[in-house]
Amino acid sequence: MPLLRSWLASANSPDTDFPLNALPYGLVSTGDGPRRCGVAIGDMILDATGAERAGLLRLADSPLLAEPSWNALMAAGPATWAALRTRLTALLAEGSAEQPAVERHLVPMAGARLHLPFKVAGYTDFYAGRHHAENVGTMFRGPENALPPNWLHMPIGYNGRASSVVVSGTPVRRPWGQLKPPGAEAPVFAPSRRFDIELELGAIVGTPSRMGRPVTVAEADAMIFGHVLLNDWSARDIQAWEYQPLGPFQAKATATTLSPWIVPAEALRPFRAPGQPREVPLLPYLDEPEPMALDLALEVELRPEGGTPTVISRTNARELAYSFPQQLAHHTTSGCPMETGDLLGSGTISGPTRDSRGSLLELSWGGKEPIPIEGGTRTFIEDGDTLTLRGHAQGDGYRIGFGDCTGQVVPALSDPYAR
Amino acid sequence: MPLLRSWLASANSPDTDFPLNALPYGLVSTGDGPRRCGVAIGDMILDATGAERAGLLRLADSPLLAEPSWNALMAAGPATWAALRTRLTALLAEGSAEQPAVERHLVPMAGARLHLPFKVAGYTDFYAGRHHAENVGTMFRGPENALPPNWLHMPIGYNGRASSVVVSGTPVRRPWGQLKPPGAEAPVFAPSRRFDIELELGAIVGTPSRMGRPVTVAEADAMIFGHVLLNDWSARDIQAWEYQPLGPFQAKATATTLSPWIVPAEALRPFRAPGQPREVPLLPYLDEPEPMALDLALEVELRPEGGTPTVISRTNARELAYSFPQQLAHHTTSGCPMETGDLLGSGTISGPTRDSRGSLLELSWGGKEPIPIEGGTRTFIEDGDTLTLRGHAQGDGYRIGFGDCTGQVVPALSDPYAR
Repeated sequence: MPLLRSWLASANSPDTDFPLNALPYGLVSTGDGPRRCGVAIGDMILDATGAERAGLLRLADSPLLAEPSWNALMAAGPATWAALRTRLTALLAEGSAEQPAVERHLVPMAGARLHLPFKVAGYTDFYAGRHHAENVGTMFRGPENALPPNWLHMPIGYNGRASSVVVSGTPVRRPWGQLKPPGAEAPVFAPSRRFDIELELGAIVGTPSRMGRPVTVAEADAMIFGHVLLNDWSARDIQAWEYQPLGPFQAKATATTLSPWIVPAEALRPFRAPGQPREVPLLPYLDEPEPMALDLALEVELRPEGGTPTVISRTNARELAYSFPQQLAHHTTSGCPMETGDLLGSGTISGPTRDSRGSLLELSWGGKEPIPIEGGTRTFIEDGDTLTLRGHAQGDGYRIGFGDCTGQVVPALSDPYAR
Repeated sequence: MPLLRSWLASANSPDTDFPLNALPYGLVSTGDGPRRCGVAIGDMILDATGAERAGLLRLADSPLLAEPSWNALMAAGPATWAALRTRLTALLAEGSAEQPAVERHLVPMAGARLHLPFKVAGYTDFYAGRHHAENVGTMFRGPENALPPNWLHMPIGYNGRASSVVVSGTPVRRPWGQLKPPGAEAPVFAPSRRFDIELELGAIVGTPSRMGRPVTVAEADAMIFGHVLLNDWSARDIQAWEYQPLGPFQAKATATTLSPWIVPAEALRPFRAPGQPREVPLLPYLDEPEPMALDLALEVELRPEGGTPTVISRTNARELAYSFPQQLAHHTTSGCPMETGDLLGSGTISGPTRDSRGSLLELSWGGKEPIPIEGGTRTFIEDGDTLTLRGHAQGDGYRIGFGDCTGQVVPALSDPYAR
């Protein structure tokens, strides 16, 4: 698909994350004003709440963008999502007769404040990256038990904690937790010393499913509203001590950071690609009617406080062995009902090479092999470090991105119980 | 504490679950009417929404019981909870001058329909029963690895699925899932053959906590609004195949059934008791300022379709090794924020003897030792079986209960993808 040209010049730049082909959804405020639904276009944001109120967007009999979240639009379903994209495209396209009316609802992205764009119902984190599963399995359980026997047959996932999902830019405080230092007889309660990132892609469920009714991969595909970048902050020392036998809990509950923009699933459809080759045949309920992997270039940047940034990893979302529609279909096999606002994380996306690993745990091989950064080295995150995920689909002369998914790690509380 | 006598005779019976000492919270409707907040008393339900509207309950400047859920009252905090109990007790006590005004808001429990009384924010399931952890660990990993090394040091828990929490009486459909039959080379997609219950107690968070701020055990205690019985339906064959390395997922996502009544934490305060003896010292953040286990008699009944019920297990909530305030305090160690409506499950409550085990997995020792029931035997649940949990605190001449927590298992869909 070629670049769709906008009358807004900044949207036609090959370097913007937000051409007319993208039209991602965010939640924006300026000054002390209220939060409004916004759509990114070039270096501007369309105040979609204001545009709906002014009659420029007519989506349903009652307003869908009046609340400060996209959940009402998400619940309205794919036909409404498509109608909104069609209308937004017409309003913003080169030659639109409505340019003057639309211009009144544009606010500059510079200086706008971005908020979490939807209310998270549930958060489920998968483990769909083969290299990540093998790397972590090797470190936690040894090479002979690296890949669990179920891994090639289904997308392994676990329920995460929805209440600590935050938007890009939110500082993340180093957590305390129960951990067992190497060689110690008993655990201690202390700040995590092995705090880490996980580079993930997220999918957001728009249309709910019924309790007791599993959905097919094709039905699951139609339920997905859009995608975000997702950093699943992880305290590796807490995780190693707590995760047997019921999985990660407090190690992953400190924060999960999302990119400020939800890229519509529709915008990424031209970038679908075959995923990883299958080593064993899948059960039919996981069959894809067409390739559903996403060709998205991804990177992780680490910047020490006051220092120079280093890109520490580059990989691609095609490294995932299970697509989001497969993950979502599996999620409903038990009859589990999915809700508008459910968030799925892909699991860490690592490539086959050392410089394409999506976590510091893997990059530094459990802390044993520090990686070089500008002005130093790193094993795990140090206080003051800012970690940024970026991702984009590369079109012909344009790109579709998510905006930075970033967070600075601030020091642990000196006494978490001081009042 | 002695029985508090009510002018409603049925509330003074030694056999009712709902004396004046209890005053549990539910959500009720009659006929085609709307759902209203209700308080159980003897064989009647006080329409608390109606009583508030009529001016009999003045809790805040604006109504707290107008929405069809208790969440607004829960969010108002412990002082408001105490004020409500004090006022309800005065209205319903023997000799109340307001008896005629209150009587207008009573509806008979017989024929009333009960709904899920609160909106579940997040659901976390713990694993705080020592005998259950040892029994299941022995069956899944062998006796030498039964109790994981972390178990004696912290309340192990995992995030569950909030969207499939249902109220007592809701039929539960046997799930399909991916499972690996014994001796098979590859997994199959089939209805679960080892569908099971878990006898648990639940705690409901009323007051939220702040992100990044762990709470003490005493603070956690004050955040807990009340308790429910909880049946964590579990597909053991799906669980055995999926749970490594990230914990249970679809095996526990079909349904979680709650008792219709939330018993206020305050009502159970006289029944606090020491818990299990400690085998290793706990880290100070888990210290209890006073004993916080609950002395609650619990039982499980199984009734085949059209058959006679059998009580298959009797145990006590004192078998839990970690109290709910300890579980909740641990839940916040990472800085994880807790929300109004968060539900904590205790984990299965099994006693030391065979007839006190809280799941069929344990009662039938993995299906190898069928247990006798009226007219037959059972290993796991058969289609048409109704499983009922009951529990009560025994006072001097009265008891405080939860009402039945019940669900009938209906056959799996013949084709889950037929449309």
